[in-house]
Amino acid sequence: MKRYEALAEEVAASIRSGVLRPGDRLPSVRQTSESRHVSPSTVFQAYYLLEARGLIRARAKSGYYVAPGLPALPPEPETPSHPSGEAATLDVSARVFEILQSTMHRDVVPLGSAFPSPLLYPLRRLAKSMAGSVQTLDPRKFLDDLTPGNAALRRQIALRYHADGIHVSPEEIVITNGAMEALNLCLLTVARPGDAVIIESPCFYAALQSIERNGLRAIEVPTHPRDGIELEALARAIEQHRPAACWLMTTFQNPLGSRMPDEKKSALVELLAQHGVPLIEDDVYAELYFGDERPAPAKAHDRQGLVMHCGSFSKSLAPGYRVGWVAPGRYFREVARHKLSTTITTSAPPQAALASYLEHGGYERHLRQLRRMLKEQQEVFIEAVARHFPPGTRATRPSGGYFVWIELDPRVDALTLHSQALEHGISIAPGPIFSASRGFRHCIRLNYGYAFDEKVEAAVATLGQLVARSVE
Amino acid sequence: MKRYEALAEEVAASIRSGVLRPGDRLPSVRQTSESRHVSPSTVFQAYYLLEARGLIRARAKSGYYVAPGLPALPPEPETPSHPSGEAATLDVSARVFEILQSTMHRDVVPLGSAFPSPLLYPLRRLAKSMAGSVQTLDPRKFLDDLTPGNAALRRQIALRYHADGIHVSPEEIVITNGAMEALNLCLLTVARPGDAVIIESPCFYAALQSIERNGLRAIEVPTHPRDGIELEALARAIEQHRPAACWLMTTFQNPLGSRMPDEKKSALVELLAQHGVPLIEDDVYAELYFGDERPAPAKAHDRQGLVMHCGSFSKSLAPGYRVGWVAPGRYFREVARHKLSTTITTSAPPQAALASYLEHGGYERHLRQLRRMLKEQQEVFIEAVARHFPPGTRATRPSGGYFVWIELDPRVDALTLHSQALEHGISIAPGPIFSASRGFRHCIRLNYGYAFDEKVEAAVATLGQLVARSVE
Repeated sequence: MKRYEALAEEVAASIRSGVLRPGDRLPSVRQTSESRHVSPSTVFQAYYLLEARGLIRARAKSGYYVAPGLPALPPEPETPSHPSGEAATLDVSARVFEILQSTMHRDVVPLGSAFPSPLLYPLRRLAKSMAGSVQTLDPRKFLDDLTPGNAALRRQIALRYHADGIHVSPEEIVITNGAMEALNLCLLTVARPGDAVIIESPCFYAALQSIERNGLRAIEVPTHPRDGIELEALARAIEQHRPAACWLMTTFQNPLGSRMPDEKKSALVELLAQHGVPLIEDDVYAELYFGDERPAPAKAHDRQGLVMHCGSFSKSLAPGYRVGWVAPGRYFREVARHKLSTTITTSAPPQAALASYLEHGGYERHLRQLRRMLKEQQEVFIEAVARHFPPGTRATRPSGGYFVWIELDPRVDALTLHSQALEHGISIAPGPIFSASRGFRHCIRLNYGYAFDEKVEAAVATLGQLVARSVE
Repeated sequence: MKRYEALAEEVAASIRSGVLRPGDRLPSVRQTSESRHVSPSTVFQAYYLLEARGLIRARAKSGYYVAPGLPALPPEPETPSHPSGEAATLDVSARVFEILQSTMHRDVVPLGSAFPSPLLYPLRRLAKSMAGSVQTLDPRKFLDDLTPGNAALRRQIALRYHADGIHVSPEEIVITNGAMEALNLCLLTVARPGDAVIIESPCFYAALQSIERNGLRAIEVPTHPRDGIELEALARAIEQHRPAACWLMTTFQNPLGSRMPDEKKSALVELLAQHGVPLIEDDVYAELYFGDERPAPAKAHDRQGLVMHCGSFSKSLAPGYRVGWVAPGRYFREVARHKLSTTITTSAPPQAALASYLEHGGYERHLRQLRRMLKEQQEVFIEAVARHFPPGTRATRPSGGYFVWIELDPRVDALTLHSQALEHGISIAPGPIFSASRGFRHCIRLNYGYAFDEKVEAAVATLGQLVARSVE
């Protein structure tokens, strides 16, 4: 973040928190320049940026004032999805791959990316843990730790479960090559070709790809953009389709950002237990909460070992290290065996580095900072959407993570918008890639996990114009 | 290796190379103690060990002499296998897993292990490469390199192909979580449930597990213990079963150690090209050759992009790092997509470390030393088998790798032997785990990839006694 952006962010935070109130006069450019030890032009740039965001206004010969009210945010989407409920065999992969590919060029503004900015992570600090831990690795350990993974790391993960009141021992954890592998191992363990698998609507496209690859049938169940999957609809789908598994993201769901309340998670686990249906719980965003407490996973309510809880450090600590895990409950043995026969074990040095960092490295401090950054980035991002998108736009306000789900005017075609945006050097994630039935044609997922700078602001403005134009 | 073992090894090498000849008198214990600056008791222990191995003899009051002739080695197995040729759907995994599990305890003599001693590898030197390279990693690279993997590492691998006269560009390589993942991705790419896949007989059990997991049928084709798969039988199997793929180890096959001669590899590729059958070439032992030149893979003869060549650093440089690769020819795009949707990408820091090591680290020097060690260990190991196993035993003499395949008296049951050996704290790999049809009941695979010390010698002796007892 540049200096003027940091300054603007600081002023914006004071406005949002109510320290500066509508009509308050801001310190003059000269005062601020002196008190902050920055050049007057930096202050000008910051104020200009705040004015462009609608937070302050200039009055001729009088200076800058806090604007009369915060810009109205777009309303949240309120209705759950209503998929057909029919089982679908899938053919989504080719399109998803094309779209993912298009978002990976470094010069594209990555609003369609699935990853937050790597600059949010303590990669230098981790590198130190790595350097220290590999020097002292006992080579024989490499074989001892085969498959289930580094014992010290499994212990650290078990300690974090314990802190949340969840009893998972290190011996019940398998370290995986990121959560993606964990999820796939779980599916391989509980579903056979032809089986039905229940997913949210919309859902993470990788679930669709796994279901397709394994010759399974996807059952999409209505999902509320704030509270997650609808339990009554889920109960009916279970009765009707006798699924081999549910694959759900209970906290900060991708793409919606929905979070199931605790009592709903508890009811979910109970419902699944009644029918003996295993839950593959994708919980990779759990650490990115904006509130005061980490939301407990459905796993916290599991008494029968039916919940296969999948986590990862990729989003919370170490992108690119590809270290995730699964606590697969009663399926531990089968999951461990599938791991052994597909990728044998997870790379040893990154595991040792993470174990050492978790033990000594100030993980909590990093997490607090990461959550604060993402929370602030969400605020300015949704404000920008409010400024630049036409009326009729709805946007979720997730209480964690780094995605916002946007419902556009029904006349907008998200796939067309995707192509148009790419021509302007902007990627977006169009709704249909999150659906077995290619629904959500007027929806998009945007990523606010990158610092909100002028480039991002300009990208949001361009997107808004493209949307406005397509409903004219 | 302890000091007396090193001394014994040195004397043994002089005997094998002919510097010391039968009947030659060895220097006295005192002379040797003085000239080598070791204690007399070390020399005594070394001579005692050599005597136990049948290489030297003590004459009362006269000293030690080289024994009249090297112990006769067991004959090599000479006949190719003769599997039924019927397609088999498999149910091998459970047994394989049990047996693998049993070999993983650190206090078991690991003759059944699939891995060589980790002490053979430059893990401290690699740790330095790791420490250096992670400090300077550009975090944004983590996203640039998604899926295909670290660009510098792919370039280093392409350079090694180039040195062998094989034209594979960095853009045609996907880095994987070890070769195991590469092989599985290849199978996923070319075979659909119900398809037939041709394998060697015996073959690497992981191939059987993959075939089972993917609902495929295994076709076992006769394989010669020295020259590999029989091409005429292969041609007939292709005509009969129309396989989706062949999965073969052309160089230092696991478990046989067989190596297809160059012209046979060329004929293999031609035969497969005629029928448009892709070859999944598992080439993880290629660097462990004992001769003067690295054996070229079948990939060297591939003109149609049908050969999917899978390699790894796990056996040659960095066990536990889980870095392998595949050059999948015409299947590159599908393989890359399966990688993205199963494990996304391979851990970044180990890739960077290996790229840096390959560029600066003296890989060739390490490899020369590794090959020499394994070659010497094979010699003493097979000599020990000759000393301790009963007549009727045959043992392969692979020109690379770290496995010897042993055919026992047909009355021996390898699975029973496995259980008996475990009770003595020794693991072995029994023949039936290498066969879809549970053949090779009187065969075992032993690992000579650990330093040949007294513990290993004693284990071989115990095994020999167990074998002798079971045919009494």
